[in-house]
Amino acid sequence: MYLPDRTWPEVGEYVADESLAVVPLGSTEQHGPHLPEGTDHLIAEALAREATDRTGYLCTPPVRIGVSSHHRQFPGTMWVEAPVFRDYVESLSRNLTYHGIDRIVYVNAHGGNVAHLREVGRRLHDDGTAYAIEWMWDESIPGLIEEVFETPGPHGGPKETAMIMHIANELVRADRLEEARDGGAVFDYDAERVHGATTFYDCIENSPNGVFGDQTDATPEIGEELFEAATDQLVALLEWLDARPVDDLMPEPPLEP
Amino acid sequence: MYLPDRTWPEVGEYVADESLAVVPLGSTEQHGPHLPEGTDHLIAEALAREATDRTGYLCTPPVRIGVSSHHRQFPGTMWVEAPVFRDYVESLSRNLTYHGIDRIVYVNAHGGNVAHLREVGRRLHDDGTAYAIEWMWDESIPGLIEEVFETPGPHGGPKETAMIMHIANELVRADRLEEARDGGAVFDYDAERVHGATTFYDCIENSPNGVFGDQTDATPEIGEELFEAATDQLVALLEWLDARPVDDLMPEPPLEP
Amino acid sequence: MYLPDRTWPEVGEYVADESLAVVPLGSTEQHGPHLPEGTDHLIAEALAREATDRTGYLCTPPVRIGVSSHHRQFPGTMWVEAPVFRDYVESLSRNLTYHGIDRIVYVNAHGGNVAHLREVGRRLHDDGTAYAIEWMWDESIPGLIEEVFETPGPHGGPKETAMIMHIANELVRADRLEEARDGGAVFDYDAERVHGATTFYDCIENSPNGVFGDQTDATPEIGEELFEAATDQLVALLEWLDARPVDDLMPEPPLEP
Amino acid sequence: MYLPDRTWPEVGEYVADESLAVVPLGSTEQHGPHLPEGTDHLIAEALAREATDRTGYLCTPPVRIGVSSHHRQFPGTMWVEAPVFRDYVESLSRNLTYHGIDRIVYVNAHGGNVAHLREVGRRLHDDGTAYAIEWMWDESIPGLIEEVFETPGPHGGPKETAMIMHIANELVRADRLEEARDGGAVFDYDAERVHGATTFYDCIENSPNGVFGDQTDATPEIGEELFEAATDQLVALLEWLDARPVDDLMPEPPLEP
Amino acid sequence: MYLPDRTWPEVGEYVADESLAVVPLGSTEQHGPHLPEGTDHLIAEALAREATDRTGYLCTPPVRIGVSSHHRQFPGTMWVEAPVFRDYVESLSRNLTYHGIDRIVYVNAHGGNVAHLREVGRRLHDDGTAYAIEWMWDESIPGLIEEVFETPGPHGGPKETAMIMHIANELVRADRLEEARDGGAVFDYDAERVHGATTFYDCIENSPNGVFGDQTDATPEIGEELFEAATDQLVALLEWLDARPVDDLMPEPPLEP
Amino acid sequence: MYLPDRTWPEVGEYVADESLAVVPLGSTEQHGPHLPEGTDHLIAEALAREATDRTGYLCTPPVRIGVSSHHRQFPGTMWVEAPVFRDYVESLSRNLTYHGIDRIVYVNAHGGNVAHLREVGRRLHDDGTAYAIEWMWDESIPGLIEEVFETPGPHGGPKETAMIMHIANELVRADRLEEARDGGAVFDYDAERVHGATTFYDCIENSPNGVFGDQTDATPEIGEELFEAATDQLVALLEWLDARPVDDLMPEPPLEP
Repeated sequence: MYLPDRTWPEVGEYVADESLAVVPLGSTEQHGPHLPEGTDHLIAEALAREATDRTGYLCTPPVRIGVSSHHRQFPGTMWVEAPVFRDYVESLSRNLTYHGIDRIVYVNAHGGNVAHLREVGRRLHDDGTAYAIEWMWDESIPGLIEEVFETPGPHGGPKETAMIMHIANELVRADRLEEARDGGAVFDYDAERVHGATTFYDCIENSPNGVFGDQTDATPEIGEELFEAATDQLVALLEWLDARPVDDLMPEPPLEP
Repeated sequence: MYLPDRTWPEVGEYVADESLAVVPLGSTEQHGPHLPEGTDHLIAEALAREATDRTGYLCTPPVRIGVSSHHRQFPGTMWVEAPVFRDYVESLSRNLTYHGIDRIVYVNAHGGNVAHLREVGRRLHDDGTAYAIEWMWDESIPGLIEEVFETPGPHGGPKETAMIMHIANELVRADRLEEARDGGAVFDYDAERVHGATTFYDCIENSPNGVFGDQTDATPEIGEELFEAATDQLVALLEWLDARPVDDLMPEPPLEP
Repeated sequence: MYLPDRTWPEVGEYVADESLAVVPLGSTEQHGPHLPEGTDHLIAEALAREATDRTGYLCTPPVRIGVSSHHRQFPGTMWVEAPVFRDYVESLSRNLTYHGIDRIVYVNAHGGNVAHLREVGRRLHDDGTAYAIEWMWDESIPGLIEEVFETPGPHGGPKETAMIMHIANELVRADRLEEARDGGAVFDYDAERVHGATTFYDCIENSPNGVFGDQTDATPEIGEELFEAATDQLVALLEWLDARPVDDLMPEPPLEP
Repeated sequence: MYLPDRTWPEVGEYVADESLAVVPLGSTEQHGPHLPEGTDHLIAEALAREATDRTGYLCTPPVRIGVSSHHRQFPGTMWVEAPVFRDYVESLSRNLTYHGIDRIVYVNAHGGNVAHLREVGRRLHDDGTAYAIEWMWDESIPGLIEEVFETPGPHGGPKETAMIMHIANELVRADRLEEARDGGAVFDYDAERVHGATTFYDCIENSPNGVFGDQTDATPEIGEELFEAATDQLVALLEWLDARPVDDLMPEPPLEP
Repeated sequence: MYLPDRTWPEVGEYVADESLAVVPLGSTEQHGPHLPEGTDHLIAEALAREATDRTGYLCTPPVRIGVSSHHRQFPGTMWVEAPVFRDYVESLSRNLTYHGIDRIVYVNAHGGNVAHLREVGRRLHDDGTAYAIEWMWDESIPGLIEEVFETPGPHGGPKETAMIMHIANELVRADRLEEARDGGAVFDYDAERVHGATTFYDCIENSPNGVFGDQTDATPEIGEELFEAATDQLVALLEWLDARPVDDLMPEPPLEP
Repeated sequence: MYLPDRTWPEVGEYVADESLAVVPLGSTEQHGPHLPEGTDHLIAEALAREATDRTGYLCTPPVRIGVSSHHRQFPGTMWVEAPVFRDYVESLSRNLTYHGIDRIVYVNAHGGNVAHLREVGRRLHDDGTAYAIEWMWDESIPGLIEEVFETPGPHGGPKETAMIMHIANELVRADRLEEARDGGAVFDYDAERVHGATTFYDCIENSPNGVFGDQTDATPEIGEELFEAATDQLVALLEWLDARPVDDLMPEPPLEP
C-alpha cells in the first residue's frame, strides 16, 4: 500500500489492523559518467514498492536527499548535513507513531545513510517510541553479489549498474560503461587503510570519475536476479517483523542490582 | 533537466552555463475521501517537471513530507516539525550553491509550507548565500481559479481535485466526490476569525472529513486548464529570474547614515 | 491587572480564579521619518493595557524586539533571528502555565511577528500545554480601516500614524508627514508579485524611506476611533476566550480508524 | 537618546558619530508582599534612561523577562530558560553591530541575569564582533549600600525597596513593609554554604515570603541617594567606554610561541 | 569506589544500597611557567579520589576539559564552548540516574566551570531528575587559605602551587617560581572593576604570564594542610548529602494561591 | 609530550615546530564480571601515551565517557547522547587549531565511538579547519588478533582481557574469567543479521553478562604482544601523518564543470 496514492479512510483501515511502515531512503549524488544521480533512491524505491506491493504493508514516500557530502566535488551531488538528515528522519518517524505505527523498516540504498539511520533507530528505541531498523539491500544478499561480480563496487560499480539496468534501463548510458571502468578505480577498503586508520573523506580521493569496479560486467539479467533476491529478503524481513510481539521490540529494563 | 535522471558530467555542463535550480515541495497528508494523500506533492512535481522540461532548467528531486501537523487527526498524514523542515530545505539549498547555483525557485503546492519556505529564503538572502523564492501554484492564477469555481477550496476542494484529475486521474475516487462535498465544509477564512483572531489550529476543527468546497465541480478539462495556466506562469517566472543580474538578487547594504 | 505593577500575593489571587494572560508584543524598527521606531510596541502595549484595565485580566510585560530583519537597512531597526524569537516567546509562555495559566492572547502590532506567534501557539497547542492565539490589532477592524483611509499602509502609513497620534502624539514628527508620503511609496502587494511569487525580502526594495501610503490623512481623532474599535474587539476576544471550557481548547484526538 | 522614541533618520545621525549602545535588562519576578514584580526591570530602566538622558548615548528598549526560575514558586514570576535568554540577548546584540555599534553596556538589575550576560558578552568578544559588558547597579556602589543599610538584601530588601520608593513610590505597598520583614529572612550567603557548597536552588528554601532583610529601613530619600550615586557611576562608565579605542576592546592575539 | 576500576556486578552492589555519585571536573589550561596545564583537573581528581576512598562513595571518571577560553592566548590551553560543556555534563548526569543515582557532587577545581555546573545542577533540579551540586575546593576552606597566604591567587598562585607540590611535586618547575611571581601580577578583583563593571574577558589582560600572587610562598607542607582540610570538608559534605531524605532534594511545589 | 603535565611555555615550544595532536578517547561501560568498566579508556590512554612518549608528539588528556547507551542495562555504564559526544569532541578539536594544530589522531578503543569520531573528523575536514582521523587500535592489527585468538570479542573478550592484563593486571578479576566465558556468548555478527538487517540495539540482547568470547584464552604475554604491535602501528601512523604536506590534508575543490 503506497501511502501517497491512498486516501485517509483507506490508510485508516490499514492502521486499524497493522502497525508496520516502510520508509524508502536514498540519495541524489554522482554515480559516474554512466549512471543517473538518482541511482540510490531509484533502487530503494523500487525495492520498497515491490516488497510492499507483494505484501500489502504500508510504504511511505521516499526521502531522496541524504548524507552525501563525500561526493560533493562531482556536479549535481546533493546533500544535507548529517544532523539535519537524522532530525528529518526522526521527526517523520516519531510522527508516524501518532497513527499507531510501532515498527519501521528504513529501506536504504546509500551507504552514507547507514550510520545515521541506525542512530535514528536507536533514538526511537532507547525511549521506547518505536522499533525502527535500517535495511540496506546489498547487505541482504552478500553471497549472491560475490558470486556474480568480481568487483561489485562499492559505488557506481556493476552491482548498481545492473540494478538500474533492471529498474530503469533507459537511464543507463550504455555507451559509457567502458569509460566508467577505465576512468574509475578498483577499490580495496582494507588496502586503503593506513596503519589501521581510514584516512580519506571524499570519494574523489579514491576515484577520479567517482566510481569503482568493472561496469561492463553488468547486465539487465543480473540486475533482475539481484532485484528478485533482495526483494525476497525484504519481504521476509517485513513478515518477520510484523510477527514479533511489541514487547520484544522495546528495550529491556536495567538489570536488577 | 531532471537532476536524478542525469549523470554528473551532464549536470556539470548545466552548471557551467546556468545557475538556476527548481526544487519541488509538497506534503503527504489527508485530502478527504476522494483524493490521495500525495495530492500536494503530485501537483508540485508535475508542475516543476513540466516547466523545467519546457525550459531546460535544472529540477531537483522533490521533498514530499512537509509541515502538516494540522491534518494529523486523519490517518496517514505525515509531517515533520517546522524547525526540522526549515533546516532540511535550508541545508539542501545551501549545498546547491557549492555547485554554483545562486537562484532557486521552491515550487510548492502545500499552504502549510509557505511561511517556512519564505523563512528559509530569507535566511539565504540575508547572508547573501543565494536568492531563493517560494512559488505556490494557485497564487499564480487567482483570477482563473475564481472564475472556474465557486468554492475552490482551500484544501481538498475542486481546485486540487481538478488538478489531480488532470495529472493522475486514476488516483481520484470519482465515486466519492459527493461524499467529499457533503461530509466536508465550505470554508470562509474571514468568517472563521473571532474578533480578528484566527482561533483554530487543526483542520478537523473546520471540516469533519478534512476537505472544503464542492468537489463535484471538478473536471479533468478544468484541471488541464489550470495546469497549463500555472505552468505558463512558472515558465515565465523562471525566465524572469534567470535574466536578473546576480547583484539585483543580493540584499542592499545599510543606508549611509 | 498589569503583572509588573503587582505583588505576588495579588497575582496569586488572580490565578486562583482566572487562567487567562495577555502578552503584548511588537517590534523596534524604522517607521519612516515621521514615526518613532517603537511604533509597533507602543501600539501593542497601549491596546493590551487598555483592554486588561477594562476587564481585569492579567497583562504581562511586553516583548519589544521582534522579527524585523527586513527593515535592517534603516538605522535603529533592532531584531532577533526568527528561531530565537519563537523560543523566547515559547519559553515565557510555557512557564506561565506553571502558575495555572492555560490560555494566552498575544497582542501584536507587527506583521513580521504573525507567522512566528502562530507557530509558537501551535507548539503549545499540539502538545496540549496551553491555548495561545495571536491577535493583530488591524486585522480585527479591517472594515473600519478601509473606510477611513484610502491607503492605510501597510507599514508606517496613515493607519499607524493615526494610532501614535492618539497614543503618544508628542512622538509624531508632524512636520515630516508630507516628506514621509513623498519619499515613500504606495504599496500594492498583489501588483508586487511576479507570476505569483513574492520576490522581495526587504522593505527598502519597495520604499526608499521605509513607509507606505499617505500619512497626511492621519489625525488624532481617527486614531482614537481606531483605538477604541480595536480595544472593543480585544475585550470581546478576551471575554470569549475566558468563557471557553478548557477541553475545547485542547487538540482533538486522532480519528478512530 | 531613547531609540524607541526616535525616527530612523535621527538614529542614523547618532550612529554616524557614535558606536555605543545601552541595553536595560531586568526580570519580572516576585519581590515579596510589598514590592511589584517588575522591581528589577523598573530599576534597570530608570537608571539606563537617566544616564543616557544625561549623556545622549543610545538606549534600546528593555528586556523585561529574564532568568528567574528560582523564584517560580511565588505566583506571577515569569522566566525564560537560561539558554533562551542568552540567545535572545546575543541575537539582538549582534544585530546592533549591523548599524555600527561596537560597544554595549547591559544595564542590569537582576542578579540571576549576571552570569548569562557575562557569557553573552564573552561570545561577542571572543569572535571580535563587539565589546559588551554587564553592569549591575548595586555592584557599582557597594560602599554606600553597606553604609546606609544593615541588611540590604539581597532580594526584595531595603535596597530595592528604597529604589522603588524613589522611582515609583505608588507601587510600594507601604503598609506591608513590616509583614515583608517579619515573614522573610535575613540572609547570610556564607552561612548558607554547607562545607563550601551552595546547596539551595530556589529562593523559597531561604525565605517563606521571598524577601530578605529589614524593609522598614527604606525611605525615598535613601532611594534617591542610591539612584543618584548609581547613575553617576553609570555615566562615568559610559564615558570611559566611549573613550576607549576600538582596538583595546578586541581580544588579544595568541602569544607568539 | 572508583567506577572505572570496578566491574558491573560490583557497581550493581553499590547502587543497590547507595544513590550518591561524585564527578570530578577540572580544566586543561595554562597555569604559568611553573605549573602543569593539568593543574585544575589534577587537584579535582586527587580530592575526589581521596574523599571517596575514605567513604566508599562512587567516583566517576573525571571531565578534564572545561570552559577555559579566557586562557586561550597561552599555548596548550584547551577548552570547549560553554553550551557544549553544560550539555556534556548534563547528559552524563542524567544518564547516571538510569542506575538509581539521585544525588551528585561535582568536585571542581576550575573557577571557570562554576557557573556552568550550577546551571546544570539547576536543570536537573528544576525538573526533579536529580539533585546535583557544585563543590569548589578552595571555597570550602576560605579561612585557612586567607591564613596561610598573603596573595593566594586567584589563578596559578601559591594556593594551587602548594596543592600540586603535595599531589604531584615532580610536575612543579621549582626553578621557575620566582619567574612566575615576577612575570605575573597581583590581582585585586574589586580594584579591577570600572565603575562597578567587570571589564576584562581574558586572563592575559591582567597578567602577562597568566598567573597571580607570590608562588614562592608555596610549600608541600602547606599543600598537604590544604589538601587535608579540603578533603575533610568534602567528606563531610558527602555524608551530609547521603543522609538527606530524597524529598528534601526535590523542588518545592508552587505556593498555593 | 603529555599536555596536562607540561607548562604553557613548553607547549609553546612544541607548537612552534609541530602541528600534530593525539586525543585519546574511550568509554566507561560494563565489560563483564572480570574487567573494569574503564577498560576502553584505559587501553586508549595507554596506547596514546606510549606512542607519544616514543615520538614526542603532543598527547591531550583523554575523553573517558563516550557513546555507550547500548550497555546501559548493566550497572555503572556511563554515557552521553551521541550528538553531545560529537559536539564535545568537535569543540575541543576546533579549539586546538587556535594554537596551530592542523592534524589530529583520535586514539580510540570503543567501537561505539567510531562513527561519531568519523563524523567529527568529516566536519573539520569539510570546512578545511583541520584534518582529524579516527584510529581504533584493534583495526590496526587484525591479522595478529585473528592469529592469537579463536573468539577475540567483540566486547569484553580475550582481546580486551589480554590488553588489560598487560596494562593494569591488578584490575582483572582473574578468578572470574570462566564465569565471564560461561555466562556470556560467542558472537557472530553476520549470523545475527535478519535478512540483511541488524535487528538488535542493546548488548544485553546478545549476551546475558555483557561479554563475548573465551576470556580464558587471554594472557599478559599476549596482551603485551598486542600492545606492542598496536603501538608500532600508531607510531607509524603519527609519523606518516606528520610528514604529509598540509595541502594534502585539505578537501579537494569542486571539479571544473
